[in-house]
Amino acid sequence: MGFIRETVENMQGYVPGEQPTEKLIKLNTNENPYPPSPAVFESMANFDMASLNKYPHPMSDAARDAAAALFGKDKNWICAGNGSDDILTIAIRTCVNAGEKIAVLDPTYSLYPVLAEIQDAQLIEISTNDDFSLPLNLIEQAGDAKLLILTSPNAPTSNAFPLDVIDAICANFKNAVLIDEAYADFSSTNCSSLVDKYDNVIISRTVSKSYSLAGIRFGYAYAQPAIIEQFMKVKDSYNINTLTQVLAEAALKDQAYFQDCISKIINTREFVIEKLNALGFETVQSEANFIFAKVPCDAQAYMNEMRENKILLRYFNNERCKEYVRITIGTDEEMDTFLQVTEKLINRQVNYE
Amino acid sequence: MGFIRETVENMQGYVPGEQPTEKLIKLNTNENPYPPSPAVFESMANFDMASLNKYPHPMSDAARDAAAALFGKDKNWICAGNGSDDILTIAIRTCVNAGEKIAVLDPTYSLYPVLAEIQDAQLIEISTNDDFSLPLNLIEQAGDAKLLILTSPNAPTSNAFPLDVIDAICANFKNAVLIDEAYADFSSTNCSSLVDKYDNVIISRTVSKSYSLAGIRFGYAYAQPAIIEQFMKVKDSYNINTLTQVLAEAALKDQAYFQDCISKIINTREFVIEKLNALGFETVQSEANFIFAKVPCDAQAYMNEMRENKILLRYFNNERCKEYVRITIGTDEEMDTFLQVTEKLINRQVNYE
Repeated sequence: MGFIRETVENMQGYVPGEQPTEKLIKLNTNENPYPPSPAVFESMANFDMASLNKYPHPMSDAARDAAAALFGKDKNWICAGNGSDDILTIAIRTCVNAGEKIAVLDPTYSLYPVLAEIQDAQLIEISTNDDFSLPLNLIEQAGDAKLLILTSPNAPTSNAFPLDVIDAICANFKNAVLIDEAYADFSSTNCSSLVDKYDNVIISRTVSKSYSLAGIRFGYAYAQPAIIEQFMKVKDSYNINTLTQVLAEAALKDQAYFQDCISKIINTREFVIEKLNALGFETVQSEANFIFAKVPCDAQAYMNEMRENKILLRYFNNERCKEYVRITIGTDEEMDTFLQVTEKLINRQVNYE
Repeated sequence: MGFIRETVENMQGYVPGEQPTEKLIKLNTNENPYPPSPAVFESMANFDMASLNKYPHPMSDAARDAAAALFGKDKNWICAGNGSDDILTIAIRTCVNAGEKIAVLDPTYSLYPVLAEIQDAQLIEISTNDDFSLPLNLIEQAGDAKLLILTSPNAPTSNAFPLDVIDAICANFKNAVLIDEAYADFSSTNCSSLVDKYDNVIISRTVSKSYSLAGIRFGYAYAQPAIIEQFMKVKDSYNINTLTQVLAEAALKDQAYFQDCISKIINTREFVIEKLNALGFETVQSEANFIFAKVPCDAQAYMNEMRENKILLRYFNNERCKEYVRITIGTDEEMDTFLQVTEKLINRQVNYE
């Protein structure tokens, strides 16, 4: 077709993790196994459905205020996105012209290269060290990229980068730095303090994982108001529907439930890591709601056998990740089943050898 | 700031119509005054809120099937958007490289120039005739634009263009033609038959107006599967939240309620047009859920006075539109109040002169 951009015609789209229709233990897309806050249910029960005939608030002000309050700020520091994927698109379209460069880590979230391609941006992929830490010459490698995306905790590797290391990068990199903190709520560290310090830092967060609300699509950018003002011009005029605004606000305001949920997931994570290590897996030090583990047998075969046992994991078939699987933290019950099946498969594997 | 695209830094964002917090008769943003279908309320009541911890269906398949069924097709002919504004963005990013051209009408929906600017596309504005019909040399004016956007019924002018005229344009224009049919459900004509006929035609529709669901953000593109496939690569991976998918599907399937609602609005529209004409307004032949009317006194002053009387209208302060106001069709009760206040203001105006 002559009327489609060559870039688009030649590209592969992003392939999201499988959303199965059968009943499976779903440990493949980093969802939270617990239901959303009771405040979300209550807000829904009180919502006037007839009001859906009206447009949403174009700026999502109430939800922005709720997000801003987490940092002691007001809504001018927040841009709301239709999921944090929308924030990534907005950041790229705000900062990067066609032909300019975007720097990302390798391995990292596989959506970034797709978004760069749509924008006709060149991609600089910066390999992390063997232990998935940041290389010392990162700024040199990022070069003249208009946007540097650091993902911390990183996906699929689960490790967070030290604050002082990221601080030094933000201080010395001349263009925009987006720190994708989709998983930071599960981490002992985060970079929110850098927003006050640097005018080129954007932090993106989401309610998808830590607030059990992947279904509503609500993410946000936290940055200095001068950046947020530019983001507002680029975002879709009514990018967040009314229900999502109401439910996100309710969830963000219920910090007690949130903290409780996070604690449970971290406890489960630490328990599962210990068990996996005992079974011969090599696990990365996780600061997320998932584990990245080197499998003591063929990783892809292991994942396929787990699938046959109705347990869904995520496998990335590339050089850096091919010996690993990514395992989302489910409920204790789900993880017990996961561990039992894993133990059975691994032991059988050992007996074969 | 050195790290923001110059295009973005220099541009004005889109300014949506006012969403007032006080109680007003809101005839300014073309919303449907009636509540959504009872099927929407029922779907919501049956929805399992706990499932919001999971990601939505990435392609919105059930809602796409419901939309496709309206044309006797399957989901491969539909791309779902986060409102039809999202479809516009997807179409532009699929068809138009930075520096290439987009052709739109003038006057028309004021979002198009903003979207073109974000994409660094050049805008070709094709003036409609004095009666807001299409100029005979439209194709010549559109030239080598990669995307031609025809809005029918057009906004804010309310008139639809004849099918045979649009058919001839699609047959002869070599690049993509997007027909924005946000208001076509209120019209006696539409262009859906052209999708089977031409591989370069994209029709966009929305549930915002005719299905009373502006709050959920659901629009869609209807086009041949080869185009839809390209759109799928460009859209955000999870662009429609779970609730919106469920509610849009329910609304699209309740065609009886939909038809009933449309009939009521058309009846009210015809009644109001007659009254306005009697008061000295010159109304365009409306095929939409709003009226575009030349005001028999200063249009901006009239709009402001209506605002003081708690009735919100839309005014466009530009050369082609400055003598007109755009009036959304509300309930019969709202339009009675609208007419009473209007009559009072216009008569006083006449007495002054």
